[in-house]
Amino acid sequence: MSSKKKIGILGASGYTGADAVRLLARHPNAEITALTANTHAGKAMGDVFPHFFMLDLPKLVEWEKVDWTTLDAVFCGLPHGTTQEIIAAVLKANPTIKVLDMSADFRLRDKNTYAQWYGHEHRALELQSEAVYGLTEFYREKIAAARLVACPGCYPTAVLLALVPLARAKLIDVDDIVIDAKSGVTGAGRGLKQNTLFSEAGEGLSPYSVGTHRHAPEIEQEIGVAAGTAVTVNFTPHLIPMARGELCTSYVKLAGGATPDDLRGALEKAYANEPFVHVAKKGVLPQTQNVRGSNYVQIGVIADRIKNRAIVISTLDNLVKGSAGQAIQNMNLMFGLPETAGLEQIALFP
Amino acid sequence: MSSKKKIGILGASGYTGADAVRLLARHPNAEITALTANTHAGKAMGDVFPHFFMLDLPKLVEWEKVDWTTLDAVFCGLPHGTTQEIIAAVLKANPTIKVLDMSADFRLRDKNTYAQWYGHEHRALELQSEAVYGLTEFYREKIAAARLVACPGCYPTAVLLALVPLARAKLIDVDDIVIDAKSGVTGAGRGLKQNTLFSEAGEGLSPYSVGTHRHAPEIEQEIGVAAGTAVTVNFTPHLIPMARGELCTSYVKLAGGATPDDLRGALEKAYANEPFVHVAKKGVLPQTQNVRGSNYVQIGVIADRIKNRAIVISTLDNLVKGSAGQAIQNMNLMFGLPETAGLEQIALFP
Amino acid sequence: MSSKKKIGILGASGYTGADAVRLLARHPNAEITALTANTHAGKAMGDVFPHFFMLDLPKLVEWEKVDWTTLDAVFCGLPHGTTQEIIAAVLKANPTIKVLDMSADFRLRDKNTYAQWYGHEHRALELQSEAVYGLTEFYREKIAAARLVACPGCYPTAVLLALVPLARAKLIDVDDIVIDAKSGVTGAGRGLKQNTLFSEAGEGLSPYSVGTHRHAPEIEQEIGVAAGTAVTVNFTPHLIPMARGELCTSYVKLAGGATPDDLRGALEKAYANEPFVHVAKKGVLPQTQNVRGSNYVQIGVIADRIKNRAIVISTLDNLVKGSAGQAIQNMNLMFGLPETAGLEQIALFP
Amino acid sequence: MSSKKKIGILGASGYTGADAVRLLARHPNAEITALTANTHAGKAMGDVFPHFFMLDLPKLVEWEKVDWTTLDAVFCGLPHGTTQEIIAAVLKANPTIKVLDMSADFRLRDKNTYAQWYGHEHRALELQSEAVYGLTEFYREKIAAARLVACPGCYPTAVLLALVPLARAKLIDVDDIVIDAKSGVTGAGRGLKQNTLFSEAGEGLSPYSVGTHRHAPEIEQEIGVAAGTAVTVNFTPHLIPMARGELCTSYVKLAGGATPDDLRGALEKAYANEPFVHVAKKGVLPQTQNVRGSNYVQIGVIADRIKNRAIVISTLDNLVKGSAGQAIQNMNLMFGLPETAGLEQIALFP
Repeated sequence: MSSKKKIGILGASGYTGADAVRLLARHPNAEITALTANTHAGKAMGDVFPHFFMLDLPKLVEWEKVDWTTLDAVFCGLPHGTTQEIIAAVLKANPTIKVLDMSADFRLRDKNTYAQWYGHEHRALELQSEAVYGLTEFYREKIAAARLVACPGCYPTAVLLALVPLARAKLIDVDDIVIDAKSGVTGAGRGLKQNTLFSEAGEGLSPYSVGTHRHAPEIEQEIGVAAGTAVTVNFTPHLIPMARGELCTSYVKLAGGATPDDLRGALEKAYANEPFVHVAKKGVLPQTQNVRGSNYVQIGVIADRIKNRAIVISTLDNLVKGSAGQAIQNMNLMFGLPETAGLEQIALFP
Repeated sequence: MSSKKKIGILGASGYTGADAVRLLARHPNAEITALTANTHAGKAMGDVFPHFFMLDLPKLVEWEKVDWTTLDAVFCGLPHGTTQEIIAAVLKANPTIKVLDMSADFRLRDKNTYAQWYGHEHRALELQSEAVYGLTEFYREKIAAARLVACPGCYPTAVLLALVPLARAKLIDVDDIVIDAKSGVTGAGRGLKQNTLFSEAGEGLSPYSVGTHRHAPEIEQEIGVAAGTAVTVNFTPHLIPMARGELCTSYVKLAGGATPDDLRGALEKAYANEPFVHVAKKGVLPQTQNVRGSNYVQIGVIADRIKNRAIVISTLDNLVKGSAGQAIQNMNLMFGLPETAGLEQIALFP
Repeated sequence: MSSKKKIGILGASGYTGADAVRLLARHPNAEITALTANTHAGKAMGDVFPHFFMLDLPKLVEWEKVDWTTLDAVFCGLPHGTTQEIIAAVLKANPTIKVLDMSADFRLRDKNTYAQWYGHEHRALELQSEAVYGLTEFYREKIAAARLVACPGCYPTAVLLALVPLARAKLIDVDDIVIDAKSGVTGAGRGLKQNTLFSEAGEGLSPYSVGTHRHAPEIEQEIGVAAGTAVTVNFTPHLIPMARGELCTSYVKLAGGATPDDLRGALEKAYANEPFVHVAKKGVLPQTQNVRGSNYVQIGVIADRIKNRAIVISTLDNLVKGSAGQAIQNMNLMFGLPETAGLEQIALFP
Repeated sequence: MSSKKKIGILGASGYTGADAVRLLARHPNAEITALTANTHAGKAMGDVFPHFFMLDLPKLVEWEKVDWTTLDAVFCGLPHGTTQEIIAAVLKANPTIKVLDMSADFRLRDKNTYAQWYGHEHRALELQSEAVYGLTEFYREKIAAARLVACPGCYPTAVLLALVPLARAKLIDVDDIVIDAKSGVTGAGRGLKQNTLFSEAGEGLSPYSVGTHRHAPEIEQEIGVAAGTAVTVNFTPHLIPMARGELCTSYVKLAGGATPDDLRGALEKAYANEPFVHVAKKGVLPQTQNVRGSNYVQIGVIADRIKNRAIVISTLDNLVKGSAGQAIQNMNLMFGLPETAGLEQIALFP
């Protein structure tokens, strides 16, 4: 017990915070010792999320009340904007704490791109350059050595795991990528919005943020790195009447005479030893049902009827591999724990 | 009462048949006088569809038992394959009856394309060439004069209303069309299939029939007509956890210097006087919630962040404008009735 | 056109207001000429409810801006509390206007019961005593003559149609009534609440307001009238993951040697000539799917395995017969129109 | 590894079989070494349930092909009827194997009651009398010593955990129990039925099997044991549009001057040391969201407005504590393992 890492969660009243609690409460090497949620400070976690009735969790407190020197790591599930200043303060209080940021604040490396998409200068520029982009499969060594990890967005995780190996291998034309993205409603968070009410989002399908979603520059940053050139992608999200799950259908143009089988082969090779990323056999189509509640990702490649084109489909649970699960995977790396510790739950189907 | 058209429905135990009943039972100029469903013959319609408890409908009978000479029109909601021979028999029994076929049997004009996609020679070739493709907005005069109308598939209706005016006006490159299509589960019919069980389809999202869906050649046929050239499109359907509704996100390359605003303008012009097809204002995104249960179609155009590309989104209710509603719209034309008769129900939202 | 009744809707940005618009926009004898929604004043109705894109509706205005003398009737879909004072002002401005109140403000006839359940004295006591309880089937004559009709709550409509004829005929023991009530999420309105978010209410089932729901005294008032004695009932509501629909399972003790068949017989007799209330045949169980989007009610009686007990199940659409539909039915009576005008839509299934 | 118990699953292609796989695959002391599914024999489990893509499982075989002597335990998820003869054969082949039957075949101890509800004589009478009823919390010692455990039905588990302590303590009148039961659609299994199609069960609520559900005699058997007298209960199930989860609202009459607080107190005392059964604090209402995917049960007691009555609400996941989870809990007991091994997953919410 004494060897368990002491963990705090900033913003525990949101869905990503809660999913971090769900997983960390059963993690063999972790112990949750602080939970913050400023608007709910003073409440029991079980009052805010009644499905935790069986857990003995610390009370929610204001983040200013936490003694950060007693913690080994902090997960941050705060909304964009407040995050950067709070994390700066936490790191000042305890410079050796490990920070797993699940917000968008440290994902973009270019300060101008950040300012352009977020509408203001970044307020912790030195940390922005220190932060490691936490797509585990591609940045494993840097993550293991990092103090501050910017965990990727849910959509970027799904898209990049599908396309980065293809861009690296020059199998696709990175100037002609169309990403039709679909997400369950938890992707919009627990905040009160009319379009996420059951009666509005249920039994219906809505495109949203077409051309303006902030996950686009994040995808472009990493495909750009993989391809060695700046890219612009089409990224078109749709809201689906389900709580969890995300599926991205990427339409790509084949490069250099590559075939769809070449693409599948490249992905199989890239993920041969990965515990969480699985490439579907030829003819098998990924579906969100296969990954719900789990840290797994499933990717499939299908030939297009249009010559020299292919379809790459990837799916994950936006709150797990798309957020809290990947953060824990990174934490495991940072602490030298087995990478899969606490993360091997199988999808809940049906 | 005596002036009402006498209507029969073949295959009334399926969802399209039932939606035809729902609408025709309240149509001011129609009277349902025959209902067939061979596996349910002898039952009351209210036993097969209990939501018709308030209607006084004819009993279900085998189609061979119907006296077709007493009917003015027949709607056909049979599965593919059996349809062509039964319709041939019906027309032989009553050569002046109007036939609204909601199946796929007469949609493809080319007998080779038909044989290729359906795996057998067409069994009523002369009727295949007689049949008029029932996309009301584009074939209004032919439909008014027709005896046999092949009502389009649900996906083709959504896609073609969005793209045909653009292809006709040479505003898009028809060799580079990607259609990411999403449908509610009723699109799969009332037959018993594992993947349409609530516990399988609910809370999940699955691509299906990628590269093999039979609506692809139908879309290609009509875009080909509009463009004056043979075309191949990417058509990728996804099953969405909702009962009704369909939304197609079409990714197009602009031609001849056209802008997204030009596309919207062309659509607005094409549908200025159409009662059921509405073009969303700039900035408004169509969603299935807006058309559920109704005969309306909503189309929107959005600029792509990739230069010289645009996104065209169209939505309809697959059982109404995508099937029974459009069939009734065509029937109205064929009988010289007001085209909107019986079809002006507003979407049921929420 | 000139003979159409001019209708205003107070609180048109809520779900009951919107369903009144949906139905009145296609009502043969009605014309919507005013819509109010104070927080959305100045907007087009199609911006607040995009499924009205095909309608040409008046802009939303503040209620104080409406000239009530130009209207024949007003539907009121405001939240509880504000209603009573606004209706008083409207009636002062136009004493001959017909008022269809869909809120709870005028349903309870006893001022003490009102004060007890709503926590304050009623603020328009003279109107409270003038108001007619708008359960159409039981108060038809009074409604036809009324100026102000207090349309019943959705649950009370379902329960009272099931139980009042039985209480009147002394077939059940009114001191032993257990009502297990289930409602779709629209029953909670369009206001932003955490428990009605898709991610919270979906895929789950929650009892709520057990022992404290304000529909209980309304049910007790009317069963009390029917039985000629004060009654207390068990009324236990549950939130169901569907948008529309309500089903009440009432557990009753048989009185005076009555049998379940006697109960069914009494209901059949009571509703023999009613257009919207249908008693299911023996062995048929009502379900919400049968009435979704419609003004119909379905009631069934089943024998209990416990001796001398029976189960009475009733279902309706909470926004139609449970609110806007019944209000229109009452309006039809008040204007001497056919009672079913504009209300004969069949349930949307699936 | 060598010390892991070798487990077979009969009927692995159903939902309860699959949930047993989901949990056993991550159980620290278990190893799945045989899977049977006669209609799918020869297939990989990942073809039948694609969410197992990450597991290395034995192929599905016919049950006759399994060498039962190599196994330590077998879980049986077969449909009723075939189970009794197959289990008899398995036990004949390996008399020391532990059998966890998740079917209904061995739950009723009285052979006449069995014959009455199942329509035929039991075909393994000696096993019927050997079988131990597997409601863990009440039969722990017998289960630990048993060879054949008849795991309770999902509804009985929810109801009995709520009511047995109250019946034992004579706090309720067992002759006046009304149980309004609600279940998600997985309760109906993976077999193809029209009423469990997404388009039929979605967005709707249906009572079913009212007065005829076979879980009624099981509930009566155990409440009868607790109360020391034969009882008849009202048990009225409803199908809810969600995949997993069950909630039973039991309406009870208080006995001997008991209060709702006395009931809650009795339950708290009964479950003070139970790892999986939690009694909600006064004022907290159980909801299925709190237990989805988990082995936990939540029970709450609420005062009725009717004097001397109370409402007891209990909820669980029908596939976990209502089936595969409870079977594993029993297996743990039978093997002397920690009772919670492999079962501590927290509910998946949202």
